[in-house]
Amino acid sequence: MTFVSHVSCPQCGATYGSEGVHNLCEACSGPLLVDYDLDRVRGAVTKEAVAQRAASMWRYRELLPVRDESHVVTLGEGFTPLIPLSERLLLKDEGLNPTGTFKARGASCGISRARELGIKEVALPTAGNAGGAWACYGAAAGIRVHVAMPSDAPEANKLECLYYGADLELVDGLISDAAALVTRGIAEHGWFDAATLKEPYRIEGKKTLGFEIAEQLGWEMPDAIIYPAGGGVGIIGIWRALLQLRDIDWVTGDLPRLIVVQAAGCAPLVKAFDEGAEVSEFWPRAETIAAGLRVPKALGDFLVLRAMRETGGVAVSATDSEILGAMLHLAKGGISAAPEGAATLVAYENLVQAGVLTSRDRVVIINTGSAQKYPDAMRAALR
Amino acid sequence: MTFVSHVSCPQCGATYGSEGVHNLCEACSGPLLVDYDLDRVRGAVTKEAVAQRAASMWRYRELLPVRDESHVVTLGEGFTPLIPLSERLLLKDEGLNPTGTFKARGASCGISRARELGIKEVALPTAGNAGGAWACYGAAAGIRVHVAMPSDAPEANKLECLYYGADLELVDGLISDAAALVTRGIAEHGWFDAATLKEPYRIEGKKTLGFEIAEQLGWEMPDAIIYPAGGGVGIIGIWRALLQLRDIDWVTGDLPRLIVVQAAGCAPLVKAFDEGAEVSEFWPRAETIAAGLRVPKALGDFLVLRAMRETGGVAVSATDSEILGAMLHLAKGGISAAPEGAATLVAYENLVQAGVLTSRDRVVIINTGSAQKYPDAMRAALR
Repeated sequence: MTFVSHVSCPQCGATYGSEGVHNLCEACSGPLLVDYDLDRVRGAVTKEAVAQRAASMWRYRELLPVRDESHVVTLGEGFTPLIPLSERLLLKDEGLNPTGTFKARGASCGISRARELGIKEVALPTAGNAGGAWACYGAAAGIRVHVAMPSDAPEANKLECLYYGADLELVDGLISDAAALVTRGIAEHGWFDAATLKEPYRIEGKKTLGFEIAEQLGWEMPDAIIYPAGGGVGIIGIWRALLQLRDIDWVTGDLPRLIVVQAAGCAPLVKAFDEGAEVSEFWPRAETIAAGLRVPKALGDFLVLRAMRETGGVAVSATDSEILGAMLHLAKGGISAAPEGAATLVAYENLVQAGVLTSRDRVVIINTGSAQKYPDAMRAALR
Repeated sequence: MTFVSHVSCPQCGATYGSEGVHNLCEACSGPLLVDYDLDRVRGAVTKEAVAQRAASMWRYRELLPVRDESHVVTLGEGFTPLIPLSERLLLKDEGLNPTGTFKARGASCGISRARELGIKEVALPTAGNAGGAWACYGAAAGIRVHVAMPSDAPEANKLECLYYGADLELVDGLISDAAALVTRGIAEHGWFDAATLKEPYRIEGKKTLGFEIAEQLGWEMPDAIIYPAGGGVGIIGIWRALLQLRDIDWVTGDLPRLIVVQAAGCAPLVKAFDEGAEVSEFWPRAETIAAGLRVPKALGDFLVLRAMRETGGVAVSATDSEILGAMLHLAKGGISAAPEGAATLVAYENLVQAGVLTSRDRVVIINTGSAQKYPDAMRAALR
């Protein structure tokens, strides 16, 4: 049972069948996205029916790409709390996922679909947390996972990869250097390439963030969503999720302004947005305490830029010192925020200060993970 | 709005009014427990109504002690997944709570009620995780938290206390030594004593574990529940929860066998159970990698022993080497288990081996926290 109609390339428009193993577009090497027969989805399920289901991201299964439910690899990911920080500001707390970050969503969906397709070994480069999540879900599925990671990635990420039995390669460089290593391994061993947007299913898991935000707000759109972008898949996923919900009439009205925050030490999307460019340039010497934001060039950059522009969003950056201050500010309210997540609060405050957002706007900020995975940043925040 | 009828002492039978600030029994210094007007609860809410509510431990609010919902301090605790490990064995994964352990339940309830009672400063000794959880919820509530902890407790626990702004005292000894320090602080400064079972509300939060297990099994009792006991409050809470559910006719039949596992290096409840004693003796030189099980003498020992005996349970111990083996075994299936949680799998396997449990028994094991908080144990498991 699937509502997937086909897989298509947003860059050149090529389309592919819903079945079979897909990586990049064969025509233009762009990322592929999953399309659904939304008329059939509209007839098959209601939001009232979804509300009766278990509190997991898989409650939205008609808008997810796994055909046979028995292939779903689930460890309780998703349906994380939306915590009010003030009357109009809400924090989506993704730390309450398996492996402590939102990466569990993409891994759950990507690994489930890989299992369905009979894939036995996957490989991915990572800034850290995605490696841990895929190692975890790969272990649960019996799929071997090969991870390449910067050698200076957080210790927690290296340890969890080994702990879940993944094959871990440390690279003296950034995620872009890790990617080159993975590409060589794939050519040599025939592993499945599970890098961000190099297969179409990881983003489908991230999409559930958008479904949940809408449902948790009583199927109303917020005014803005602020997301910390490394590879940017989450914000592309949220964008697509809200468009799909609007197409099946579960939500109405304008999409929220989709706002991206990056670290001042690695802000290729901010630069591209400011310059009116359609794609970003490789950011040299990327450096920030927010390890997940050390992505010098994202494959889906053109989609992130499109999502922001089509919704009246903006892209802003946060310094490491602002990020550490926001972590501690959130901790004083009992919130455990990863540096990446804390950056969204910096963005919110700076945008309210600048008058881009007002205190009347209902804004959702995405805390992508728990501070627990970043003890070094916690210590730095305390200093 | 409250369904609390009174507070009572299970040791001497003394009763107290439902309002006011309570610590130990004034007559016999025993722990106090909260009683409800279950006839009124039965008339006020149905299990169908509960199923419609948000997926949080607060969905059972009629059986929780907070009077005014506006006092509830919630960060998304509870309603954690019940993951099937095999056809008849299920793992309740408490790692998906704020601060990464089941201690969030007790802290959420205890801090909420403390706020309702106007308490401004609380103090507690801890083996580690309870300190972190109370620091977190205290921060969320604006209540000052004083924590005393063994100096060799996990680094993650010390760091999170400081991170959430608690006042942390490290003690050269065990939780029992930390307790003595807290008692002095309380006498000197008038802080509220929030030690395990020294106030009646923390256990009420733990009770929700029992409600959730029943609801997640379709309001059926499992055959057995295995719980790793340090202070033992969780198993007492589960016992009371299931008795209350039976009293309001939401579940029927025999209670599950309540089984306790302790570490071989600190097993006072196992020794007392084996000897037929009604209370445990102080365990000298307690030592185990499962930091949360380093509790040489629990205030609620007589209740844990009663819970086991009245339900046909047993008490068993697990060695550190068995615990590390079980952690790694669980990791190979994608489960992130704290050493304490992994001990329940050791107990299950040993009890099946010994014929005490059979493979036909439906058994729930409680993984009290995420392995993430124990990187040293993760590393030791990998060796």
